Amino acid sequence: MIPFADRLDMTIVLHANPVLVGLDPRADLLPETLLADPGPHRPEELADAYCRFCRGIIDVVAPLVPAVKPQAAFFEELGPLGMVALGDVIRYAREKGLLVILDGKRNDIGSTAEAYARGLLGSGGAWQADALTVSPYLGDDSLRPFIDIANQRACGVFVLVKTSNPGGRMFQDLVADGQPIYRHVAAYVESQAQQTQGDCGYGLVGAVVGATYPEQLGELRAAMPHTWFLVPGYGSQGGTAKDVAAAFDRHGHGAIVNNSRGIIFAYRNKRYADRFGVARWQEADEAATRDMIDQLRADTPAGQLQGIKD
Amino acid sequence: MIPFADRLDMTIVLHANPVLVGLDPRADLLPETLLADPGPHRPEELADAYCRFCRGIIDVVAPLVPAVKPQAAFFEELGPLGMVALGDVIRYAREKGLLVILDGKRNDIGSTAEAYARGLLGSGGAWQADALTVSPYLGDDSLRPFIDIANQRACGVFVLVKTSNPGGRMFQDLVADGQPIYRHVAAYVESQAQQTQGDCGYGLVGAVVGATYPEQLGELRAAMPHTWFLVPGYGSQGGTAKDVAAAFDRHGHGAIVNNSRGIIFAYRNKRYADRFGVARWQEADEAATRDMIDQLRADTPAGQLQGIKD
Repeated sequence: MIPFADRLDMTIVLHANPVLVGLDPRADLLPETLLADPGPHRPEELADAYCRFCRGIIDVVAPLVPAVKPQAAFFEELGPLGMVALGDVIRYAREKGLLVILDGKRNDIGSTAEAYARGLLGSGGAWQADALTVSPYLGDDSLRPFIDIANQRACGVFVLVKTSNPGGRMFQDLVADGQPIYRHVAAYVESQAQQTQGDCGYGLVGAVVGATYPEQLGELRAAMPHTWFLVPGYGSQGGTAKDVAAAFDRHGHGAIVNNSRGIIFAYRNKRYADRFGVARWQEADEAATRDMIDQLRADTPAGQLQGIKD
Repeated sequence: MIPFADRLDMTIVLHANPVLVGLDPRADLLPETLLADPGPHRPEELADAYCRFCRGIIDVVAPLVPAVKPQAAFFEELGPLGMVALGDVIRYAREKGLLVILDGKRNDIGSTAEAYARGLLGSGGAWQADALTVSPYLGDDSLRPFIDIANQRACGVFVLVKTSNPGGRMFQDLVADGQPIYRHVAAYVESQAQQTQGDCGYGLVGAVVGATYPEQLGELRAAMPHTWFLVPGYGSQGGTAKDVAAAFDRHGHGAIVNNSRGIIFAYRNKRYADRFGVARWQEADEAATRDMIDQLRADTPAGQLQGIKD
């Protein structure tokens, strides 16, 4: 099977854009056509609505973008039925040709980390995502099992390096040996990415680096030439296309930019609500996706990507 | 409802010991009476065996110890049926009077962290654990939602501070502003514990501090007078009762010591296997639990706890 890093790169080139659509279903924000009354709702109702909502998004974004990022927490909140819905959404997205990066931020040591990786990643797993986000606090022997199993299954791992939330600074920016902690994490991630690089020049170990720190994005891009960047914080967290430009290499490769609320809840944004209304929420989501693609093509090196589909 | 910190303290005093039994079911280590042939097994077979194994452990340890710690990863590995089994195990343990600390090491930001906390903690949640382990890399605004929801639901949160694995040193021991990173995390945890302290003097925010670092245990005990310690690494990871002695305050309160494999797979240990054989695995688990209780009473301040039951 083709390594994850190369699959990701090829899929981005295919669509000529690096948009990652975050699937963060929330009961209180769903279109009323999917979940009408104000609740409380039974878990089976919510799980069903989450499935239909995510499938509806996938239907409109699959022809346009390379990948989606389901957020495990919102499915897990519903209990086992939510986890069934998560499996359904991952399967459906993959059937539609999307790569699936599961946002689980899992972490543990040794055989426990293996259990997460075996369950969540690739064929043989219960959920079969193409990649998984993981947290680095436990150190290299906690990341190793995720990397090894990802390698065996042609999957990927994205390690939190510099996160987009204000509180991310609290520990990540503490300076040790002349470098902030996130640079120490970055050095380990880059070493692992370098050792697992595919034909595209990037490895299976990527980094989560927030759009809200444009300066650090550029600094890390230079320090991590073999590392895919997953960039959250675009849109609702304040990051713009110009802010994320530094995440790419000079040919427009090497980064994938997430937008969750700005796309999936576009029908709640006046800009799209006036055009489409709530009933046509999928068209609003599609329009918001196209707008983000246009912005990234205009203001980042991703504009150089040669698309095949459009 | 009585705050988690006080419930934990009372339950430890009730049993006059601070043993936390880790529930880490693994297909390849289960007694053959529960899972006979070598596999591969269907998820429903494994989920059923995990349930019966954990219920069997709970039956023998509930009269002896204050709490159990199911490891989410092993259940999650089986898919949604594993998560159903996890719910069953948590419910059964609580019915038997045990406190349940779910080892999920979850972490995320804002409303996503809330979704994990709402799903996993307390009544109203899908899984209803009494406490949850969480990872600190994302900073204070990622820990806040867990703490707030734990507070609303009389539950607890244990933040990874100094972990027991060798790789834990990689980032946790880096020195910034004259202190290792784990001391920076510790300072935040103690401030939150102090603000949420119950009648017992400890707060709802605890710290995970490994038994494999006896010196740091003592140093952190002194620096964190309001913080419950969850101490992993006893037994199979090499920590002894003497190693964990410094985790307690001078009256024997303030710490709970985990043992997973050393208790639940005791029937695979020659010491107990010779006495009981595999068929009497529950008796082996019970004997190992009693031995650990005796060791902690002999070699730590927990020996001063006044038991009510025995």
